[in-house]
Amino acid sequence: MRETALVDRIRKLAAHGTDTRGLIRGIGDDCAILRPRPKHDLAFTTDFVLEGRHFHLDTHTPADVGHKALARSLSDLAAMGSEPLFCLVSLGIPANLGERWIDAFYRGLLRLAAQYRIALAGGDLARFDHVIADVMCCGEVPKGKALERSGARPGHRIYVTGELGASARGFSTRKGTAWKRHLRPEPRIAAGLLLRGLRASSCMDLSDGLALDLYRLCRESGVSANLSGTLPVARGASLDHALYGGEDYELVFTAPPRTKIPPHLGTLRVTEIGAIAAGRPGRIAWAGEVLQPKGFDHFT
Amino acid sequence: MRETALVDRIRKLAAHGTDTRGLIRGIGDDCAILRPRPKHDLAFTTDFVLEGRHFHLDTHTPADVGHKALARSLSDLAAMGSEPLFCLVSLGIPANLGERWIDAFYRGLLRLAAQYRIALAGGDLARFDHVIADVMCCGEVPKGKALERSGARPGHRIYVTGELGASARGFSTRKGTAWKRHLRPEPRIAAGLLLRGLRASSCMDLSDGLALDLYRLCRESGVSANLSGTLPVARGASLDHALYGGEDYELVFTAPPRTKIPPHLGTLRVTEIGAIAAGRPGRIAWAGEVLQPKGFDHFT
Repeated sequence: MRETALVDRIRKLAAHGTDTRGLIRGIGDDCAILRPRPKHDLAFTTDFVLEGRHFHLDTHTPADVGHKALARSLSDLAAMGSEPLFCLVSLGIPANLGERWIDAFYRGLLRLAAQYRIALAGGDLARFDHVIADVMCCGEVPKGKALERSGARPGHRIYVTGELGASARGFSTRKGTAWKRHLRPEPRIAAGLLLRGLRASSCMDLSDGLALDLYRLCRESGVSANLSGTLPVARGASLDHALYGGEDYELVFTAPPRTKIPPHLGTLRVTEIGAIAAGRPGRIAWAGEVLQPKGFDHFT
Repeated sequence: MRETALVDRIRKLAAHGTDTRGLIRGIGDDCAILRPRPKHDLAFTTDFVLEGRHFHLDTHTPADVGHKALARSLSDLAAMGSEPLFCLVSLGIPANLGERWIDAFYRGLLRLAAQYRIALAGGDLARFDHVIADVMCCGEVPKGKALERSGARPGHRIYVTGELGASARGFSTRKGTAWKRHLRPEPRIAAGLLLRGLRASSCMDLSDGLALDLYRLCRESGVSANLSGTLPVARGASLDHALYGGEDYELVFTAPPRTKIPPHLGTLRVTEIGAIAAGRPGRIAWAGEVLQPKGFDHFT
């Protein structure tokens, strides 16, 4: 009866403090059921958080892992200018991690979920040698208004939110606010919604570093980029951390020159870092050199 | 550039032979975007397929793994009477498995996807010590018409599709048609759609064995069950295989006595196996005994 009992526990935890906008059926059936709102598109994303790859059990509490697992997916919703609705969580756990670990994982995840009014609607559970989690998030966006990677055009200005390199710096020092930033990244949901209102021409979240992620955005848009401004490097972080460090979960976005982008989105600073140009798709020039599209890549 | 190149490969593979009903944006952005049809609900499910738990590399080809990963999720859509729309695939792979393995995995998955006109809309990729896959499927169902686990009422008849125990039998012998059934389960999408039309009162797919899964259905419905008919045990399988063996992916469902359930759904045989009763939720009586709710459980 262990799995059924475990599902019951999670169902009870999930029933508190989260919204169920449009969710007709959550945990307890073969599928979750959503009744979509008229005149809205839905955005879907899924992200792994794997032991030894994205976290370690000796440095991350179960609540950190739960937080990060949801934050990575929420960050993708933010990049589309999407309002979070619900998530599905697949969790694999070794036998030596008991109910306390599992409870703490879900509490960490559900605390972040409550912050963004996103419901835990289902998922899968399995025993495995390592902790592995895969979180699918669904969000909604008014019809045709999703921010995509493909809308950057020559002449558009390039911006980033917040500061870059804090997570990579934290990962190397394992202390201070930079380490906290690494442990508990904040998805930029509010900024994404504001950017949708401002009609940014393209947007993407920075999960693998500015150099690699901006390369991907430029490739999808069929354009190149010239970086010119001073990058907003986080205190204590190096330029390498800012350019090639992963997991900042800030947003990089573009807008036509006539669009007024304010210096802050809510309390989050915005910095203009360059302009889109014609030329080889994905080419990024910076300080007279071509930036290598390297960063956090599982496959190199 | 490896990850970007790999995503490009998968994107090319995914572009062939699958439908994109309502899918506005697929692979290549932070999220996939769906424009839902009016007057329809959406069903969501996610399932793990983990090396050493759900398959072994020495007995399963990469195409088998891809097939099974999608089939498990599709089977959940079938249980809701839902029409498949798209899937997201998260895949973790060891470094020693190259592009050929990855290609074959996606080809196996996409062959099944094409059969059910379901699009591969995105996912995640990561290096990991073991092959791990998590597949999220989304399907649609006319508003309010999803088949749920919770609708069985005292007096309703209980039915199962197909034959039971073949997968468990195949798992033990590793040969013949039973082994093929284990390797390449067929999700009962067509039967689920027909059962929706017939207004079955509840439905669930058999992934962990009849005894455990019917227990779960009865618990959600707040009822007990009396099994009376002869179970449709697959040729060569034992009664234990049929009752407690996992991964048959047939459907167990209920219907009021006045509802005429045909002896076949398409070419798939249907067998009446008992009736729902009042009494302790989840209690299943069979041949004068109470059936233990045991079966495939990761957590026992």
